[in-house]
Amino acid sequence: MTSVSVKRLTTQDENFWSELDGLLAWEGVSDEQVAGAVKEILTNVRRRGDEAVVDYTNRFDRMSVQSMDELDIPQARMQEALARMPADERKALEFSTQRLFAYHEYQRAESWSYTEPDGTLLGQKVTPLDRVGLYVPGGKASYPSSVLMNAVPAKVAGVEEIIMVVPTPDGEINDMVLAAAALVGVDRAFAIGGAQAVAALAYGTDTVPQVDKIVGPGNIYVATAKGMVFGTVGIDMIAGPSEILVVCDGATDPDWVAMDLFSQAEHDEDAQSILVSPDAAFLDKVQQSIDRLLPEMEREAIIRQSLEARGALVLVENLEEAARVVNYVAPEHLELSVEDPDELLENIRHAGAVFMGRYTAEAVGDYCAGPNHVLPTSRTARFSSPLGVYDFQKRSSLIMCSPAGAASLGRYASTLARGEGLTAHARSAEYRMKK
Amino acid sequence: MTSVSVKRLTTQDENFWSELDGLLAWEGVSDEQVAGAVKEILTNVRRRGDEAVVDYTNRFDRMSVQSMDELDIPQARMQEALARMPADERKALEFSTQRLFAYHEYQRAESWSYTEPDGTLLGQKVTPLDRVGLYVPGGKASYPSSVLMNAVPAKVAGVEEIIMVVPTPDGEINDMVLAAAALVGVDRAFAIGGAQAVAALAYGTDTVPQVDKIVGPGNIYVATAKGMVFGTVGIDMIAGPSEILVVCDGATDPDWVAMDLFSQAEHDEDAQSILVSPDAAFLDKVQQSIDRLLPEMEREAIIRQSLEARGALVLVENLEEAARVVNYVAPEHLELSVEDPDELLENIRHAGAVFMGRYTAEAVGDYCAGPNHVLPTSRTARFSSPLGVYDFQKRSSLIMCSPAGAASLGRYASTLARGEGLTAHARSAEYRMKK
Repeated sequence: MTSVSVKRLTTQDENFWSELDGLLAWEGVSDEQVAGAVKEILTNVRRRGDEAVVDYTNRFDRMSVQSMDELDIPQARMQEALARMPADERKALEFSTQRLFAYHEYQRAESWSYTEPDGTLLGQKVTPLDRVGLYVPGGKASYPSSVLMNAVPAKVAGVEEIIMVVPTPDGEINDMVLAAAALVGVDRAFAIGGAQAVAALAYGTDTVPQVDKIVGPGNIYVATAKGMVFGTVGIDMIAGPSEILVVCDGATDPDWVAMDLFSQAEHDEDAQSILVSPDAAFLDKVQQSIDRLLPEMEREAIIRQSLEARGALVLVENLEEAARVVNYVAPEHLELSVEDPDELLENIRHAGAVFMGRYTAEAVGDYCAGPNHVLPTSRTARFSSPLGVYDFQKRSSLIMCSPAGAASLGRYASTLARGEGLTAHARSAEYRMKK
Repeated sequence: MTSVSVKRLTTQDENFWSELDGLLAWEGVSDEQVAGAVKEILTNVRRRGDEAVVDYTNRFDRMSVQSMDELDIPQARMQEALARMPADERKALEFSTQRLFAYHEYQRAESWSYTEPDGTLLGQKVTPLDRVGLYVPGGKASYPSSVLMNAVPAKVAGVEEIIMVVPTPDGEINDMVLAAAALVGVDRAFAIGGAQAVAALAYGTDTVPQVDKIVGPGNIYVATAKGMVFGTVGIDMIAGPSEILVVCDGATDPDWVAMDLFSQAEHDEDAQSILVSPDAAFLDKVQQSIDRLLPEMEREAIIRQSLEARGALVLVENLEEAARVVNYVAPEHLELSVEDPDELLENIRHAGAVFMGRYTAEAVGDYCAGPNHVLPTSRTARFSSPLGVYDFQKRSSLIMCSPAGAASLGRYASTLARGEGLTAHARSAEYRMKK
């Protein structure tokens, strides 16, 4: 049994916080060459539409199609994939979809308004986005669960049309992705990917309708393209590597905790798994579990590299100090594997999703518990939220003045507008005061 | 009386939609030289902290300070400004602040959770951001109302600390801005601006605390810097020129409507004012009002340039078609100056703020009606919302499985994880099923 060398940190060390900073440091790749290539693709697709999309798809995905028609994935094709799906996987996908809908229903915002004594109405009208683009990666990283997680909140919000794009390199198409799309009600799909797919969705072409927002994960070309079209359309957060932070009081089975760390680490070499505990002996036990269990894992090499490069076992004084570490890290996934998770939660301010108690594996949240698995990474949980229905709804302020309200509000508006030197503002308010 | 040449469009024209597109076209300036300069400033402030901020401030704002201490605006200085304020302006500012608080209270999201029959708990915990940076432009565009509009939703959300930055070129400080800051409860303020202020807030220095989000308007350097630090901190939308679209049935006093168009146009030469009506004679009357009233206006030159370059009077078939034009434009400010604004509102899907009925001047919304005046521009109301309490709150998903829930959810999670080849995920769920 080779030992896995996972970094040990302790808050007692006077350099602890700067060491923690070093461990967390992650800069998204910002490559000038990628940016140049993406800019050119965006410009070409904007100018030449379908023709450019077809050219790039033939080149990058090694296809040989003549027109966009051949890249249209008809609804019937998605339904076929669903019909062909093995029964147990279909049942699991249906179970997951149903639970996602149930949870996300709670997130739907409703319009509201109130009327003041003088008859003036104030409020907020909530409306869904009209049309949303869903990017699904091709090849290995193509997950049906990701289709569900991105589409369900849009559906609950009331988005009328969901357009999916998924590259099919060498013509290879992922049936599970199509089945998930059929299950969740994706309206149209195209076999395109990369920056060219993002451009087609952002600007629209003769074949691909222009959308109002683009969501879903992708490689560096896709992420760069999303950053560049932001403003023309909305985008979701651009995700960094996946992370988990487990807080354990020392009384959970160390094998369980080790496997939870693995479940994050197996995503990719840059994924980050951190265990925080006030029990030094427990940290040793988890290290032993890691050493013992790792050779059994299918994705052993990835897990080892991730744990050795970016993992850590952190000794803290007590659970209060653990909460301080958590709030600094603002982890994407937080597991509170402790006796009283409710009490500890009171001190938690920043985390994407919190898995409470010894019986809650992070993995159930990835698939079927109900909450979304698209979560803020790289400390962005300090200011952002899981993907949700609120990402597919937007608000319009409503103001309807009664004549009395126009008079009383107009007076103050006029004073403030004149104070700022904006006299047309002042006069437009004053007109309504005369009557 | 010189006539103001405002573009006339009609939906009957077969080129109408492409002409409308041309009218709306607006590309935010993306200047390579600006980007290079900003990148250098960000890098220097990140590396050298206070020292770099002091250097840049001396250079760009023509100051000669030795250290950041001299750029700290103490709380007492803000309180003095408030005490010195003229009584009527102070009363108007207090009136406005109180109404903003009342309206924004309705936007606060609360945590929620539900427990399933098997004891599994699901929910969402809502928490405020810890610390927010508020950018206030110096010089001419320095508006006290902007301080209120950006700070109130943060306060309502429960943000603990608001740090204001405002450049003071040549040492000139805007007393009204400081007074507004004192009134609304800004915690700390620094006399710095530009990309160096954005960098100080985003990365933190010895003197300026690192924030979690930066909001507030600024020039091209500020906007570019905000774009570049996004991800390290949150940012609000980057605003384009201000816009109004007035829909009128033809029965409102044409002088009122002309002044409403002016009130947008007076902001700057790029501002956009559009009137849409099914009544051709009314469009003529408004044109006459424009011609007659413009020479009376303090900001005549700006208004003329804005109306001639980007304004339009649009003839539509009926109010239903007016709504279609509105939904395409997705205007920042929408005025429904019609007999039955409620009926028309039902067809409106995209707008930042809606001013309903003949008595609601857009100007009351800019100052004191209650809703926020920071609104989505350049068609982004298709996918984004007014600045609100929701911009200063974020959510964490909560999952707490009972042993029974862990068993039933674990089964499906395991199936889906194995389907995706993620066996550590599967095993971490399966461990919790054994007991």
